[in-house]
Amino acid sequence: MFNKDLIKKVFNNERRQVARAISIVEDYNSEASELLKQIYSNVGNAYRIGITGPPGAGKSTLTNQLTKLYRKEGKKVGIIAVDPTSPFTGGALLGDRIRMNEIGNDEGVFIRSMATRGSLGGLSKKAIDAADVLDAAGYDFVILETVGVGQSELDIVQAADTTIVVLVPESGDSVQAMKAGLMEIADFFVLNKSDRPGADQAIASLQTILMMKDHDEKSWMPGIIKTIASENKGTDEVFKEIERHKSFMKENNFFLSKREKQAISRIKEIVETKIKEKLWSESGEKSLNSTLEKVILGDLSPYHIAEEIINNFINKKNT
Amino acid sequence: MFNKDLIKKVFNNERRQVARAISIVEDYNSEASELLKQIYSNVGNAYRIGITGPPGAGKSTLTNQLTKLYRKEGKKVGIIAVDPTSPFTGGALLGDRIRMNEIGNDEGVFIRSMATRGSLGGLSKKAIDAADVLDAAGYDFVILETVGVGQSELDIVQAADTTIVVLVPESGDSVQAMKAGLMEIADFFVLNKSDRPGADQAIASLQTILMMKDHDEKSWMPGIIKTIASENKGTDEVFKEIERHKSFMKENNFFLSKREKQAISRIKEIVETKIKEKLWSESGEKSLNSTLEKVILGDLSPYHIAEEIINNFINKKNT
Repeated sequence: MFNKDLIKKVFNNERRQVARAISIVEDYNSEASELLKQIYSNVGNAYRIGITGPPGAGKSTLTNQLTKLYRKEGKKVGIIAVDPTSPFTGGALLGDRIRMNEIGNDEGVFIRSMATRGSLGGLSKKAIDAADVLDAAGYDFVILETVGVGQSELDIVQAADTTIVVLVPESGDSVQAMKAGLMEIADFFVLNKSDRPGADQAIASLQTILMMKDHDEKSWMPGIIKTIASENKGTDEVFKEIERHKSFMKENNFFLSKREKQAISRIKEIVETKIKEKLWSESGEKSLNSTLEKVILGDLSPYHIAEEIINNFINKKNT
Repeated sequence: MFNKDLIKKVFNNERRQVARAISIVEDYNSEASELLKQIYSNVGNAYRIGITGPPGAGKSTLTNQLTKLYRKEGKKVGIIAVDPTSPFTGGALLGDRIRMNEIGNDEGVFIRSMATRGSLGGLSKKAIDAADVLDAAGYDFVILETVGVGQSELDIVQAADTTIVVLVPESGDSVQAMKAGLMEIADFFVLNKSDRPGADQAIASLQTILMMKDHDEKSWMPGIIKTIASENKGTDEVFKEIERHKSFMKENNFFLSKREKQAISRIKEIVETKIKEKLWSESGEKSLNSTLEKVILGDLSPYHIAEEIINNFINKKNT
């Protein structure tokens, strides 16, 4: 088990211990649950910003610019960059290098990259747990930055208080593919690289889709902000829009109800993960293998085997 | 419960009853498990082909052309088209209309579209279950066609014996985003619309990535086939490549081991789905709601609550 001082040192924002705590959370063993329980009394003060969008949209650049704006106001910023595609694209690494030059040496900024192949479900859980660590360490803002390609990345940004979807004029295809999911999670859109051809059409088509959304006067209406993040153009507006969304959420009591919903889905995920572990580490795996041949031969359906495994799992608890 | 004749009528490939059985599977209630158990004795003969790729790559067109080739050989073809984005894009509907004109009136072809917002996990399960129904009804080939944007769609095509990834020259961005997943599932690639600019570069970059894959002389090496599906160019080669892959898998005993792996992941998914239902329909949901306030106030961590719920779930079984 981790040293008892660790929790205290995380609360004091000692960088090496914060990094260590995140590593424990990433390894995800029995220590991780214990750590997350112990830090929880200090969790809940950080404002969480989710930034997602297709690869190459400029998410890292925008994150950097926002971070600089928060730093000007004396706020501490934690960044968790999740790139499930990075084993192939090297995306996370490249982004990190740029980041390190610009903001990486600032004591008020903590940057952590997470990348993996497969097992995305686990990754979203770990990213949200890591956000808790940074929250407990006293970072005022935690930015969760992720490539928006799958359900699990959507889960990550849904754990944010304000979610920004970054698009570029030429990402029409990606929009097409992802908009079913993205429309529902975006608190507002950023059209980055907005000096490129097609920017006006991209905005027009976004607006059309936004108008299809159900809403009344009382609900928040996602807007679209044009930026050229690499030239720091429009990033002030993004900063202000985050503030505007934050105020709106708090004034209308949406803030707590959003956090409540997030807590529910998070607890459910923890429960399901732990039940799965119990299920497959013990009798389940055995009964699966012993009956597999019958499934292949067509004697027993997967549904028969599944029932058997569930019964074994429940009966085991009676002994 | 469904009429007992239903199973017999499915086995006899009576179209309306096959459609009805798929609807039962789609509704996913207690009838569905029973139905799937009862048809299983007839499942396992169909060869399953997975076709995936970005929206607009021409998957439906390729599916139609392949279907016509199989029909020429007197084979019956079932098609399950899954489009999770369709509430927005109308993709599935458009594809269906084209399909209906070309092959929809053929008695040896059965077409079913599935679309949904959210809950993709459920969708992949239903699509695989529907493939079982078509298999039991005696279709020689079942084509699972899906838009490749998330983990669950990958799950669908992984349930196939041969998986084809369809790309177009201009889908460079999508490739970038998805290749981590796609590289691992493709038995071969189809570069459709290969008369468009950028085709050669697309192939070169695919080849580069393929060369990075671990392989030895004995393993299957995914190739790339150029097509213009709308002009029926290259579809013969696709047909032959499926046959070549099928023979390779059977000769090298990979066929059964692949089906074994599929059976394992399928049984696991069924078990987990059913356990989740038990978990959240009963005491779980109650204890969640009653303790939620404490999480929001920071008194109890999500991990505390999760443990409590798991204990309740297990103890309930002792009574």
